Amino acid sequence: MNYGLKNRIFFNKVTILGVGLIGASLALALKKKKLCGHITGYGRTEDNLRKAKKKKIIDSLELDLIKACADSDLIVFSSPVGSFINTAKKIKGSLKKGAIVTDVGSVKGTIVREMEALMPEGVSFVGGHPIAGSEKAGIDKAKANLFSGARCILTPTERTDKISLRMITGLWRKISASVTIMSPEEHDRVYAAVSHLPHIIAYALVNTITDINSAYLKFAGQGFKDTTRIAASSPELWRDICITNRENILWLLNRFKENLDELAGYLQRGETKAIEKKFKKAKESRENVR
Amino acid sequence: MNYGLKNRIFFNKVTILGVGLIGASLALALKKKKLCGHITGYGRTEDNLRKAKKKKIIDSLELDLIKACADSDLIVFSSPVGSFINTAKKIKGSLKKGAIVTDVGSVKGTIVREMEALMPEGVSFVGGHPIAGSEKAGIDKAKANLFSGARCILTPTERTDKISLRMITGLWRKISASVTIMSPEEHDRVYAAVSHLPHIIAYALVNTITDINSAYLKFAGQGFKDTTRIAASSPELWRDICITNRENILWLLNRFKENLDELAGYLQRGETKAIEKKFKKAKESRENVR
Repeated sequence: MNYGLKNRIFFNKVTILGVGLIGASLALALKKKKLCGHITGYGRTEDNLRKAKKKKIIDSLELDLIKACADSDLIVFSSPVGSFINTAKKIKGSLKKGAIVTDVGSVKGTIVREMEALMPEGVSFVGGHPIAGSEKAGIDKAKANLFSGARCILTPTERTDKISLRMITGLWRKISASVTIMSPEEHDRVYAAVSHLPHIIAYALVNTITDINSAYLKFAGQGFKDTTRIAASSPELWRDICITNRENILWLLNRFKENLDELAGYLQRGETKAIEKKFKKAKESRENVR
Repeated sequence: MNYGLKNRIFFNKVTILGVGLIGASLALALKKKKLCGHITGYGRTEDNLRKAKKKKIIDSLELDLIKACADSDLIVFSSPVGSFINTAKKIKGSLKKGAIVTDVGSVKGTIVREMEALMPEGVSFVGGHPIAGSEKAGIDKAKANLFSGARCILTPTERTDKISLRMITGLWRKISASVTIMSPEEHDRVYAAVSHLPHIIAYALVNTITDINSAYLKFAGQGFKDTTRIAASSPELWRDICITNRENILWLLNRFKENLDELAGYLQRGETKAIEKKFKKAKESRENVR
């Protein structure tokens, strides 16, 4: 791809809105690759911002949202997605002309459309989603190479500014992520399936066993531990993701329940061969996931 | 525990019925700890047995089931549980007096009761289940220390011979497993919850996405991979486990579906706080699983 910018990706001032695992890791990566000048961090928790500054993840902290964004060239939304629209409404009047606003949220669809509509003249929005989260949230787990080799989905629309998209594509590539472009709606269908549904399932599975007899959990082996690792993910983050993408998730939950009911029927009727066939199908499919 | 045997655990001849990951690893562990003389392997696939002999996992192979067991001091059932009863019926007439029969199956309940009833006078059965499986079956993954630090559940009944139980307890302890005693029925309730249900869920989840659009799977991140790792487990092994423990599993599947329906209801009605509360409960519970 020719960026039309002589491949020069540089932002004088970057603002990270929400300095958690992803926001902090992105800040570290931008610094390491010398893709920016000054990084300001904004967030709800002053202690966390002070810690981020002490760890040299950000260069300065700002508790005033408007001030944090006013003279920035790149504003990264990396707080739970439920806060995006309100935050965008608050900052839109004071953004610098030519600024790019992007995000790292796990849901895109309506959020991208709304964010786009909120951007003032001369400011562009590019939706992004790096596939690099963890159930271990917070800046203590942040690292500059979190995105190295990871996939990053960018979700431009027909309204997305071409140069801004190239800049954001270049940014992720420079920090060694592999960029995939898809529409916000396609993104939400795909990630409802491979991420949001599995999270709901993991949360529900842990709660099921906890309700029946939490003492059973001490007998869990590696299978249970792996299957439910993501049930330790941030409730706040995942609440927002699930609510925002609920239509896709609810549809998938019904498909999933149909699959469970089919297996339950086979079990009830002792249909050994049918069960083995379903398990075999899943095994083959799973073995193709790299 | 005083074994009443001066802690001497030794079996002149051991027969492994089914030389897969668990059977082969147990053979390697017994040899390493010098707990046995000769090990014979029996199985359906001659090639696999030859490979096991070549790798010195077993000392000899036997394609005749009766001959494989006739003069053995310890017979270990390590094939899929669905084959246990038929195999026991075939060998029971030719077992050596004083022999101990044990197993490594993931289901105990009715199987233990039936196996017990099939044992001839002077031969005792002790049900066992080492928690050390993997989705990677077969002898290539076998290793002598597979059970080191692992839990092994033994499921004696009121009919179990005390000395035999001590011998089998001693055997697992000598190969560094941590032994837990529970009834066969309690075992099946616990493992339906922490192992069998998660397997069914993982299989169903992979099939759900495969049915909708298998191309979505290439976008899967680590969360999906971990959640569905066990969907690559042996269809034959898990078919048998699920069929055998189906009553517990079906009951749990209904509890799980109630949990899913509750979450779906919250999503539908946009009950943000209720969702966060459920996710938080799961997170706290999951974080206590070590």
